Amino acid sequence: MSTSSMETVSASASEFDRDTAVTLRAPGVYDAELSAGWTIIHAVNGGYLLALLGRALGQHLPHPDPFTISAHYLTPSVPGPAVIRVETVRTGRTLSTGQASLLQYAEDGTEVERIRVLASYGDLDALPDDVRTTAAPPAIAPIDQCFGASDGPTPAIPGSSAITERLDIRLDPATVGWAIGAPSGKGAMRGWFGLADGRDPDPLSLLLTVDALPPTSFELGLKGWTPTVELTTHVRCRPAPGPLRVSITTRNLAGGFLEEDAEVWDSADRLVAQSRQLARAPRG
Amino acid sequence: MSTSSMETVSASASEFDRDTAVTLRAPGVYDAELSAGWTIIHAVNGGYLLALLGRALGQHLPHPDPFTISAHYLTPSVPGPAVIRVETVRTGRTLSTGQASLLQYAEDGTEVERIRVLASYGDLDALPDDVRTTAAPPAIAPIDQCFGASDGPTPAIPGSSAITERLDIRLDPATVGWAIGAPSGKGAMRGWFGLADGRDPDPLSLLLTVDALPPTSFELGLKGWTPTVELTTHVRCRPAPGPLRVSITTRNLAGGFLEEDAEVWDSADRLVAQSRQLARAPRG
Repeated sequence: MSTSSMETVSASASEFDRDTAVTLRAPGVYDAELSAGWTIIHAVNGGYLLALLGRALGQHLPHPDPFTISAHYLTPSVPGPAVIRVETVRTGRTLSTGQASLLQYAEDGTEVERIRVLASYGDLDALPDDVRTTAAPPAIAPIDQCFGASDGPTPAIPGSSAITERLDIRLDPATVGWAIGAPSGKGAMRGWFGLADGRDPDPLSLLLTVDALPPTSFELGLKGWTPTVELTTHVRCRPAPGPLRVSITTRNLAGGFLEEDAEVWDSADRLVAQSRQLARAPRG
Repeated sequence: MSTSSMETVSASASEFDRDTAVTLRAPGVYDAELSAGWTIIHAVNGGYLLALLGRALGQHLPHPDPFTISAHYLTPSVPGPAVIRVETVRTGRTLSTGQASLLQYAEDGTEVERIRVLASYGDLDALPDDVRTTAAPPAIAPIDQCFGASDGPTPAIPGSSAITERLDIRLDPATVGWAIGAPSGKGAMRGWFGLADGRDPDPLSLLLTVDALPPTSFELGLKGWTPTVELTTHVRCRPAPGPLRVSITTRNLAGGFLEEDAEVWDSADRLVAQSRQLARAPRG
């Protein structure tokens, strides 16, 4: 992490919290503004959008934290105003389930649905502290040996890369071959993750983290965009302060689609989030 | 597979198709009957229920096959009448997205929602035939060295085991230690899967297959039920006829929850389905 990113930024002052803020307009209806600061290529980042939906759900439901959140991406979001409609599906003692839709407006003013989400929320702080995880943290080189957006050659990504200024991602040297035209051929992407302004991770920001690294398809030699069809994230533990480690793998690229499995580890060596998405494979 | 299971059963004559039939009552409303034949311990199997929802979605949406289907389980289903309500969320050229709810009736006649689902459907037969899967089929012993429900000691599962009569599951010897009180301690369950009446697999029956093996927690030495909170399944390829291989792993048992990742391979060595669920860990 850069020196600046080591400074502590209060949640209210962070770019992430400012840009995922939602304003209650009516019961179950939240206004939001999709920031152009989280775009990559031609799209608003799907993890950023998920965090917006996750924040609205957390405000609406009786439980605060996303335990499992399944998002189906319908149409491409664009920077600008949006509305989030939230419905409580079921309220239980330890879990409650909600549904949310993110909508934007067509030129004629009609609403167009961008994303629909089902999520079960709970209270991470109320969980027992048993840990029998057999998974081991991913092997990622030390931060100072990893590559950030300002290191080395600039990869040829067309269009916006605004999001790279808000993230402090350091990719493992073993998964940056794509940036110099020498992809490894392995469906893997690994690196350190932080928010550039130093805001510490929390369950909401993990929803961004799982979808923030370059797509594994880059390392498979495929350029171009991999639009997400569906992304489901399990948040399993409140992350400790400090940088996160993210490991993403793709094992099944076939029939024009691929899956991306992400796992996120915190500075205390806890597996704090697991996600899987189905995405369309790039054509090239 | 047993001799009887090698006989071909037409789809209409199969137990699975009969028990997942849905009857259109009104636009978007389907009547169903949850069969007691798919219960285990005290619950109706979640994969069987998912197949019912999947069938209703397939009839309602313009595309036939579930590509990715995310189910959040709300309350325990019981054998008997049910209604499925389906809504089209978006219709696209290659994918359409739908939402479905399975409901049953309380004693006073009010509807109680059991499961809510978001799903994106497509046409598996329209996909290009590129396959760049790096995953290898799971190492499972030959069928004749695996253990079926009628082989060896009967594991101490309380309550109903009706579903075992409808499935032809042969577990790998490496993952049956739990049945004789000697769990491996590894979060893995592997085996061959078929329907007992010999009906060949299809995209709908894969929704059952991903949730049909004993829970991995048995091999972690935990008895008791692991109720599913959320289950997302990707169907990636129409399965070839013949027995399937299923491999399920759990890497993160912590805080009273665990994930189960399943992959399903067909007789042509294609990875036909991948699923992940979040479940509550048994207490014991």
